[in-house]
This record gives sequence, C-alpha cells and structure tokens, in this order.
Amino acid sequence: MTIRPAVAEDVPQILAFIRALAEYEREPEAVVATEADLLRDGFGPNPYYWCLIAEHDGEPAGFALCFYSYSTWLGRPGVYLEDLFVLPKFRGLGIGKALLQRVAGVALEKDCPRLGWEVLDWNTPAIEFYAAMGAEFLDTWRNVRVSGEALKRLGKLVMSTTRLQ
Amino acid sequence: MTIRPAVAEDVPQILAFIRALAEYEREPEAVVATEADLLRDGFGPNPYYWCLIAEHDGEPAGFALCFYSYSTWLGRPGVYLEDLFVLPKFRGLGIGKALLQRVAGVALEKDCPRLGWEVLDWNTPAIEFYAAMGAEFLDTWRNVRVSGEALKRLGKLVMSTTRLQ
Repeated sequence: MTIRPAVAEDVPQILAFIRALAEYEREPEAVVATEADLLRDGFGPNPYYWCLIAEHDGEPAGFALCFYSYSTWLGRPGVYLEDLFVLPKFRGLGIGKALLQRVAGVALEKDCPRLGWEVLDWNTPAIEFYAAMGAEFLDTWRNVRVSGEALKRLGKLVMSTTRLQ
Repeated sequence: MTIRPAVAEDVPQILAFIRALAEYEREPEAVVATEADLLRDGFGPNPYYWCLIAEHDGEPAGFALCFYSYSTWLGRPGVYLEDLFVLPKFRGLGIGKALLQRVAGVALEKDCPRLGWEVLDWNTPAIEFYAAMGAEFLDTWRNVRVSGEALKRLGKLVMSTTRLQ
C-alpha cells in the first residue's frame, strides 16, 4: 500500500470516491460537484482543499480530502478532514487507518495542533475506530448551517438594513 | 453602526474580542494565541482566516472571524464562521445580526453555497437567534477531534508502520 498526494490527473478518481462515499452515507443524489469544480478548487494557485490517495497494488483504494481550519484560541490553523473513504473491496487492510495517520502526519508537519472531522451518529464502526485512534467527541457543540434560500435571504438583507463601508 | 473588513492594525482588538468570547464560553484560560500569531495567519500573502469588525459610534463593538471550508458534494468552498461576538455593552442593538448578515453576504459574493458554524448546546439565546435567521441544526453529525499527545501518536505512527512515497 502506498499513500501519495493527489495530482490534477486524479480528479476523475477523486470524484468517483466522493460519489461512493455519498452513497455509503445514504445520500447518493447529493453530489453535484463536477470534475471542473474539483480541478479549479484543489489544483489552482490558491487551493481550497488538498487530497491524499491510497493505492493497493497500484489500484486506487481510498482517499482523504482536507482543508485548513483556524483556531482563534490556539492562534494556529488546524487540519479539517472533510472526507475519508476506503472502497469496500479494500477494507480490513488498514488503509483507512494509514490515511488518517498520514493526515495526522501532515498536521504535525504544518504545526497544526488540531485535526478535526465529523461522523454520522449511526456510524458505529467509524465511531469505534476513531475512539481507538485517540479521538475525542465534542458533543456539547451543535453544528449549524445556513444554505440555499435561507442564505440568500440572510445575505441580501444586509444591503437594505445596515449601512456598510 | 458600521461593519468593515479587519486590517493588520486591528489585531490587538481582534485578540481582545477572542479573549472576551472565550470568557463568555467559560474557558478564559484556553486562549494561547498571540498578536504575532493572528498577524501572521490573517494578514500575510495566503491568509488562513478573514475577519469583520463592527463599530458603534467609532468604538469596536463586535467581530466575526471566518475561514473557507470545502464541500465535496457541492464542489464549492463554504464559509465557516469560527467566532461571532458582540461586547456585552453593545448587545440588543442588532450588531450580531448585522455581522451574521454581512458574513452571509460575503458567502453569496464568493459563490459559497453554505455558511456553517457551531454553537454550545447550553447557549439557548444564540440557538434561538440562529433558528430565527433560517439556520438548520445538523444534529446527526458528531464533531470529532484529535489533538495534543493523541495527534502526535497518530501522526508519528505512520513513519514506522506504513510505507509512504
């Protein structure tokens, strides 16, 4: 098994992994990202994300996709693991663990004191795996999101109700 | 009231806001960030975060500090709101709402389809305020983190147990 940073030529494979992960998370219709999106956002001059690819005997087996967060308490960026996935046929070989370890290694190299991510509360195998890796679960924090029409309403209100410079 | 993007000269005020927010979140000792950290990470050539300052009659009243996340499903960056805070003496004037609206406006300008953040589960006034702004609460997702010694163990293991290129 080898783990290497993704390059632009991996974009079709990255999108295939993203789709397979969405299917596992029971939301196969949720992926609207295109190859062009992933190429523009991950492999331009100021990328929004970075990605590692795991290969087993030369075949793509899994991936980890991350971006940098920021901790105002620590005054340092953190690594945020958006996606971690191993194709079903390659499970049980330690590939997920190796990807997580490599992401943690990048965090240490970049002097990022925190590695964070999210897990679905019904995904018991993943939760047990993460606990065994030394992870803590920050269950007093609730995740909040504004998107779609609600975001448009919220963002546009500002034009008419406050004076901005 | 005015809201403007923070500049390097605002760093001491940003740190004062960060400390005041940590006190409100009952963790006043948790802030180890320095002015040098915030200057380096927010105002260099490739900043990790960006910040808005709200002023009331020329006095600093509150701030919003954000970074860019990434959605692999949407194939677009998102805006992540790390900190939102209004000093107690300026509450009840709509400043928090105006900051959140301005952050949402930036998300729309940058074509970021999601604005996300976290809230402590005991912070009922904030939860009600966010719900009124159209936010949804993603309570099936648990937040996971590896930091400190656990991160060092996880990241260093990779050197000895997997072969990397």
